[in-house]
Amino acid sequence: MVQFKNIYNFNAGPAMLPTEVMEIAREEFLNYKNSGMSVMEMSHRGDHFQDILNNAELNLRKLLDISENYEIAFFPGGATMHFSAIPQNFLINNESGAYILTGVWSKKAREEAVKLGFNTEVIFDGKDHNYTSIPESFDENTLKKHKYIYITSNNTIYGSRFTQFPKLNGNILIADMTSDLLSRRINVNNFGFIFAGAQKNIGPSGLSVGIIRKDLLEYPKKPISVLQDYKVYFKNKSLYNTPPTYSIYIAGLVFEWCLKMGGIDKLESLNEKKANLLYDFIDNSNYYYAPVQKRVRSTMNVVFRLNDTNLEKSFNEEAIKNNIVGLLGHREAGGLRASIYNAMPIQGVENLINFMKHFQENNT
Amino acid sequence: MVQFKNIYNFNAGPAMLPTEVMEIAREEFLNYKNSGMSVMEMSHRGDHFQDILNNAELNLRKLLDISENYEIAFFPGGATMHFSAIPQNFLINNESGAYILTGVWSKKAREEAVKLGFNTEVIFDGKDHNYTSIPESFDENTLKKHKYIYITSNNTIYGSRFTQFPKLNGNILIADMTSDLLSRRINVNNFGFIFAGAQKNIGPSGLSVGIIRKDLLEYPKKPISVLQDYKVYFKNKSLYNTPPTYSIYIAGLVFEWCLKMGGIDKLESLNEKKANLLYDFIDNSNYYYAPVQKRVRSTMNVVFRLNDTNLEKSFNEEAIKNNIVGLLGHREAGGLRASIYNAMPIQGVENLINFMKHFQENNT
Repeated sequence: MVQFKNIYNFNAGPAMLPTEVMEIAREEFLNYKNSGMSVMEMSHRGDHFQDILNNAELNLRKLLDISENYEIAFFPGGATMHFSAIPQNFLINNESGAYILTGVWSKKAREEAVKLGFNTEVIFDGKDHNYTSIPESFDENTLKKHKYIYITSNNTIYGSRFTQFPKLNGNILIADMTSDLLSRRINVNNFGFIFAGAQKNIGPSGLSVGIIRKDLLEYPKKPISVLQDYKVYFKNKSLYNTPPTYSIYIAGLVFEWCLKMGGIDKLESLNEKKANLLYDFIDNSNYYYAPVQKRVRSTMNVVFRLNDTNLEKSFNEEAIKNNIVGLLGHREAGGLRASIYNAMPIQGVENLINFMKHFQENNT
Repeated sequence: MVQFKNIYNFNAGPAMLPTEVMEIAREEFLNYKNSGMSVMEMSHRGDHFQDILNNAELNLRKLLDISENYEIAFFPGGATMHFSAIPQNFLINNESGAYILTGVWSKKAREEAVKLGFNTEVIFDGKDHNYTSIPESFDENTLKKHKYIYITSNNTIYGSRFTQFPKLNGNILIADMTSDLLSRRINVNNFGFIFAGAQKNIGPSGLSVGIIRKDLLEYPKKPISVLQDYKVYFKNKSLYNTPPTYSIYIAGLVFEWCLKMGGIDKLESLNEKKANLLYDFIDNSNYYYAPVQKRVRSTMNVVFRLNDTNLEKSFNEEAIKNNIVGLLGHREAGGLRASIYNAMPIQGVENLINFMKHFQENNT
């Protein structure tokens, strides 16, 4: 078709989607399964969309081995809407939520809870070392004081991630998995509520996925906005009101693609291979460095710097000329970042490394 | 290409999109303007998406003649999220909002305000006559007691609409225009806040558009969820967090199409022509009838019944066999409904009328 296959998009999100998914979506764009309509034009109450929704849920269950004790729902909007929904759904009276601040997003999540008048405690804050590390464990007595413990499993902006999750005893572990859901094996049974904005490993922006342990839906709470009420979403199977139908369709295609790729374990090992390739190159270089502590380095968002940070701007500009785009770090963090989600082929990482070598040679 | 062009989709929403829009979107699906990426994969902070967003706003301004006194924003999710956002953004202390209940959606909007503890007054309720009429005017003394007056400009479910809007003096007119924005000329200056879910005349579901008079953003309010805070959306130009980028792109294409079609006045006259064709046929029939009072009949959602309501089910089934789909009324209203938004060509209405004649002949 054209040169677009040669462009590698390292944006943190919206991010690359699998080429196979995009080709199927294009093929079906005007006429889905001989319906004479685009999925975008179909009633959310019709059979076609109902099948799309059911299959998306089923395949997500298969991928993450989600038991019948958990409900799945699709939400309009990304992760941010959950920040305020969470305390409203899980805290009542004087109960409190504990926040582990490993980056910008967990900080924002807590700010919403505080603003709405809920009790929170910060039990770790990585700010002082620029979020480059995450403790291996947390004080059990502190953990057990709270109704829920809130974490961000992978930090898109600073490039760190939890490699072991806090061990709880009865209280609820809540995880924002926006940037690593479907990238690695997790045991859903250890979590009360998991949510993820779609625009990294799942589909288009403006969609998020939630996975909740059923009994938590019956938890008492004050009256809240209907669209922040998890019970309404989950009990209505994502159909309380018109959901983002086309985005759910794309997510469904991505789930099918994940299964075709061999499932989560296979994707996880591919992701480790890609990330190791890049981290090893950086670690062995005297020109680039990766600031995050090795134990907690993200396989999704590889944050790196040039020893001479003044060269980072031209590094990015040169990269774009070489069809390698989206490498600038988040505006809160600066520096450089290669987001290598499931859809990034190993060839993309290899091209990036070759470019990095090339840039170093020409700028030393 | 195939027979899909012969299918006419009368769904209330998600609904038909203009064929020209869908063809452009398909053409650009994998590779937008030689970027090597789909719009779905692009950073929301990059130049391409910034252009898409700016143009969408600009074209919407052009279409509705929106002055610089108003801000425009795109929201994730449909109209429902605004139901709870509205009282939270516009009411403080003992202020109250008046609701004109002309159908299901205004009723739901009020329920959200009540649930969250706000003062409301219902100043009209069409329930007793099944929402088939709307008063020509409302008591001025009642209107002026309230901080805002809330209306649904067009009732998707019952097929009625405001033909003249309440005249206010200083207080805020708020309108849910989900099913008629862009279908007819309105004077935006008479409104404080207008919002519309996209899935009728604008684009894919999971997106809504808001138009607000700037000074209202400075209105004091209690702390609210960041994603229900209009000030946050509008001041950040829809980019506080990752917006539903692909849906905004489609909306932008629809706005361009509306301009190409000749703008709002031209679309309005086409819509009147289509609606009159159908209503005239129904009114002149002794087999079908339209329950809504003539003065307030919607040009977007033509609600009708068969005199013998028992035949409605088979009417719909036969219609589907004739490539006329989506005619069943909303589950709250029953009966039949032809939604004929901007994208429905006159040929679709003609086909429907021909089918109705045919059905009558075969079932009398």
